[in-house]
Amino acid sequence: MSKSKKKLRVIPLGGLQEIGKNITAFEYGDDIVVVDCGLSFPEDEMLGIDLVIPDVTYLVKNKEKVRAIVLTHGHEDHIGALPYVLRELNVPVYGTKLTIGLIKCKLEEHSLLDTTDLRTVCAGQTIDLGAFKVEFIHNTHSIADSVSLAIHTPLGVIVHTGDFKIDYTPIQGETMDLARFAELGKKGVLLLMCDSTNIENEGYTMSERTVGETFNEIFADCKGRILVATFASNVHRVQQVINSAVKYGRKVTVIGRSMVNVVNVAIELGYLIIPEGVLVDMENMDKIPPDKLVIITTGSQGETMSALTRITFGEHKKVEIYPGDLVIISASPIPGNEKLISRVVNELFKKGAKVVYEALADIHVSGHACQEEIKLIHNLVKPKFFMPVHGEHRHLRQHTDLAIKMGMPSENVFILENGKVLELTHDSAKINGSVTAGRVLVDGLGVGDVGNVVLRDRRHLSQDGLIVVVITIEGDTGNVVAGPDIISRGFVYVRESEDLMDQIKEIAKQAVNKSAGKSRGDWSIRKSAIREDLKDCIYQKTKRKPMILPIIMEI
Amino acid sequence: MSKSKKKLRVIPLGGLQEIGKNITAFEYGDDIVVVDCGLSFPEDEMLGIDLVIPDVTYLVKNKEKVRAIVLTHGHEDHIGALPYVLRELNVPVYGTKLTIGLIKCKLEEHSLLDTTDLRTVCAGQTIDLGAFKVEFIHNTHSIADSVSLAIHTPLGVIVHTGDFKIDYTPIQGETMDLARFAELGKKGVLLLMCDSTNIENEGYTMSERTVGETFNEIFADCKGRILVATFASNVHRVQQVINSAVKYGRKVTVIGRSMVNVVNVAIELGYLIIPEGVLVDMENMDKIPPDKLVIITTGSQGETMSALTRITFGEHKKVEIYPGDLVIISASPIPGNEKLISRVVNELFKKGAKVVYEALADIHVSGHACQEEIKLIHNLVKPKFFMPVHGEHRHLRQHTDLAIKMGMPSENVFILENGKVLELTHDSAKINGSVTAGRVLVDGLGVGDVGNVVLRDRRHLSQDGLIVVVITIEGDTGNVVAGPDIISRGFVYVRESEDLMDQIKEIAKQAVNKSAGKSRGDWSIRKSAIREDLKDCIYQKTKRKPMILPIIMEI
Repeated sequence: MSKSKKKLRVIPLGGLQEIGKNITAFEYGDDIVVVDCGLSFPEDEMLGIDLVIPDVTYLVKNKEKVRAIVLTHGHEDHIGALPYVLRELNVPVYGTKLTIGLIKCKLEEHSLLDTTDLRTVCAGQTIDLGAFKVEFIHNTHSIADSVSLAIHTPLGVIVHTGDFKIDYTPIQGETMDLARFAELGKKGVLLLMCDSTNIENEGYTMSERTVGETFNEIFADCKGRILVATFASNVHRVQQVINSAVKYGRKVTVIGRSMVNVVNVAIELGYLIIPEGVLVDMENMDKIPPDKLVIITTGSQGETMSALTRITFGEHKKVEIYPGDLVIISASPIPGNEKLISRVVNELFKKGAKVVYEALADIHVSGHACQEEIKLIHNLVKPKFFMPVHGEHRHLRQHTDLAIKMGMPSENVFILENGKVLELTHDSAKINGSVTAGRVLVDGLGVGDVGNVVLRDRRHLSQDGLIVVVITIEGDTGNVVAGPDIISRGFVYVRESEDLMDQIKEIAKQAVNKSAGKSRGDWSIRKSAIREDLKDCIYQKTKRKPMILPIIMEI
Repeated sequence: MSKSKKKLRVIPLGGLQEIGKNITAFEYGDDIVVVDCGLSFPEDEMLGIDLVIPDVTYLVKNKEKVRAIVLTHGHEDHIGALPYVLRELNVPVYGTKLTIGLIKCKLEEHSLLDTTDLRTVCAGQTIDLGAFKVEFIHNTHSIADSVSLAIHTPLGVIVHTGDFKIDYTPIQGETMDLARFAELGKKGVLLLMCDSTNIENEGYTMSERTVGETFNEIFADCKGRILVATFASNVHRVQQVINSAVKYGRKVTVIGRSMVNVVNVAIELGYLIIPEGVLVDMENMDKIPPDKLVIITTGSQGETMSALTRITFGEHKKVEIYPGDLVIISASPIPGNEKLISRVVNELFKKGAKVVYEALADIHVSGHACQEEIKLIHNLVKPKFFMPVHGEHRHLRQHTDLAIKMGMPSENVFILENGKVLELTHDSAKINGSVTAGRVLVDGLGVGDVGNVVLRDRRHLSQDGLIVVVITIEGDTGNVVAGPDIISRGFVYVRESEDLMDQIKEIAKQAVNKSAGKSRGDWSIRKSAIREDLKDCIYQKTKRKPMILPIIMEI
């Protein structure tokens, strides 16, 4: 194939039609560059699942083409799948200093640090990856050291915003490098891929700095101990808590595994500036008077195993809640977590604490751009083609509507699904074909060994429990020599439902006898006859459908 | 006991420290009056549970004292437990016309209509119930015909707001009877019990009428079919959809069992005014051009079995979504339902519909009072004692804070829990003692036969599934004559995990052999030895903890 005929292929393997597990492959000829490698958290119906990671079959099949994984920032939905993907695809990983710092912790836990080729880059830098040149552009987001990317290809430039907001008064470092976006736009951009998370919100996202002002107001008035729960990765938020603590003469203790990890990495790399003597170990915390102490901790989402939840419910080994404590939950509920957070807030109030949360004060701002910021990016970049990323279908759709309203021809905007291929030349784009994509479920040590059938069984078991019917049969004669025994779990209180259980046993006996003729040689027919009989009778009596598990032992 | 020494006892049996299942008993001497009789929906961890109803043991024990159940309005969290409670406590039920109309449907479904003594009252009316006189006071809420109560007792007046908002421009009927609240306040009120649902929100709740204005704007612009999903019980909302439909020359079809029920009751009783010829049967709907049709339906919470969800996912027998349809979801997500609603919205967008929901337009207002409205009630009623109702702990706490800020002595405000007793004389109040209270879980036909142990088993099964180990043993010798057989459900894909299952079988064999000595006569010891051995090995290999169910058959 002559070079002029080569196509550029953009292949999202995660992050489209969903929030989370962001990962996209850029392919040109014999070169593939992967941007981000995130995980997502299980949906409610994925019972017992710990994590969800993208299916990277396509990358593994094209292993020899993959030049690198390039990361935009250190959030779990952009880096969390690395320990799993790197096992199958050992390629260099590029990211900025803090991003790489956070990945090191993660890879160490998975014993992968020694075998991974981590490469630190700076915003402004451009790296060569086969046919691609990838340029890192400073942006602002709810984690420090976040970047957008300009991917220079033989057919044109792709601008990928990554996650971003436009914060004109960031806590640390520069504002977003809008000038570079403008410059690229002026020279001509083939494709824009832009964050859609907050597309439903009009106006602008407030600056991170506004949260610090609220902290100062709250700290100024507070006579007791202060606990602040927030996202561990939000180093700027943590910095602002520390600033307020210093301003009002308080010491700071950091609690919660991931908070301690991130704070240590951030201090080491210079992203968190803490004056000498302000930090106090958990062990020495009790020596500080309550009105001179701030505890920074995890658990802003009410996660059951988090430090704040354990502290709140009296399950933490070192810290408990006293009347007069002030607890600030500096976060928005991620959809699905509302009730968990409510539970913690209610318990804190019961223990006599004062609680400040989003409903009551401005103690959180989003890390994602709202409509006016997104419009600014479109206006500066002026892409030929546009593909919204990072969002459910409704976000992607509203983002393309916005692009069209701003003047893009509707045939130049593309809503993709994971696995679909956007094929580009220097002056055309179309959705053409697809590759394997999807989700891989992680449960304990198992990666991918739980799928739809297993989940369906878990759901069934969770709804009405289980009834096991066991009989022992003489193989030669087909005669039942023991049973049927009935064992149930998660069905009813057996002791208080003796009548019902006796009836079920009786039905099982009849079903076993009735099925006798059907059985010779093929237990599965006999089992399914028993199952059907029992199912109908139990449903009539209880309007429930427990899982029925007939077991035939042969002697 | 002389009359002068009798105490007045207020006993919440539901609705405190929670949202839902509102029910309160008022007791004086030999008389008990019950206010409301609601249900709540199961928490996430109550797997397989359909409904939660209050534990009314105390009322059943004092059956002969209970004069009546008095209802404030027809929402499920105020009337939903009636069919269950009436079976144990057959007393007269009082409510306004629409409330009684809605209860009739419900009791008919439970075959309880003929045996229940339903009595319709009007706002303004007072009824004698033993020592109590209960006065019905018109208020405004998100359902028509809602009332507050003044309960006149020998020791003073109790004002119970029920659910309310202050809507100065209601869709139908009068504004809330604030004058009566003022009059009662002037004469002296012993105790105020006030709705706390929206205590976290500053300002005022907008009038229901503002939603109608948004409907008009949306209808004016729309060229295609319109579907509106809202709460079936919100008759005023339905009226406003119909008003907009009439204004823009559209016919209306009503879909969804509960929506059809409520609309029929509301038309019959005069709460819904629909001009002749506007309603069209579902059967004849297809004859109407899309731009002349509005469908009103249930499913505003994304409930999986609701009409809108089934229509959206192509599972409804008569209606499907076409490109160009406009779907209005006229509701706020109830906490916990956010993801269900998102799922429906995403699918609607995918099918090419336009979707208007709360994030995008003002198509919903709350039915509950915000801070300024609540302050007005406190100001008019000027109670001696105050007890916030209808709320989680955080709401109750913030409501008492507000009362204290408005001048009440802190010793006169009481946060109760369900089952606690507030004991009052004409000039004192204290929390004194408690009665049985709690929640009863309804699962299918079973009421109360599922409790903590059963739920714990369901949770266990839902997380990592189940492994059954069966052996058949010769009773005389204790020898294993068949098995161990291993059956798993909800654990792993068995076919793709043959190695693991073989290992587990091997471990089971060893465990069975190892436990042989321990068994004679007591299978439970042998079973628990097998369970422990398997549990440890499986956790080491998989980091999972399936339920392990050893079964020993004896021949």
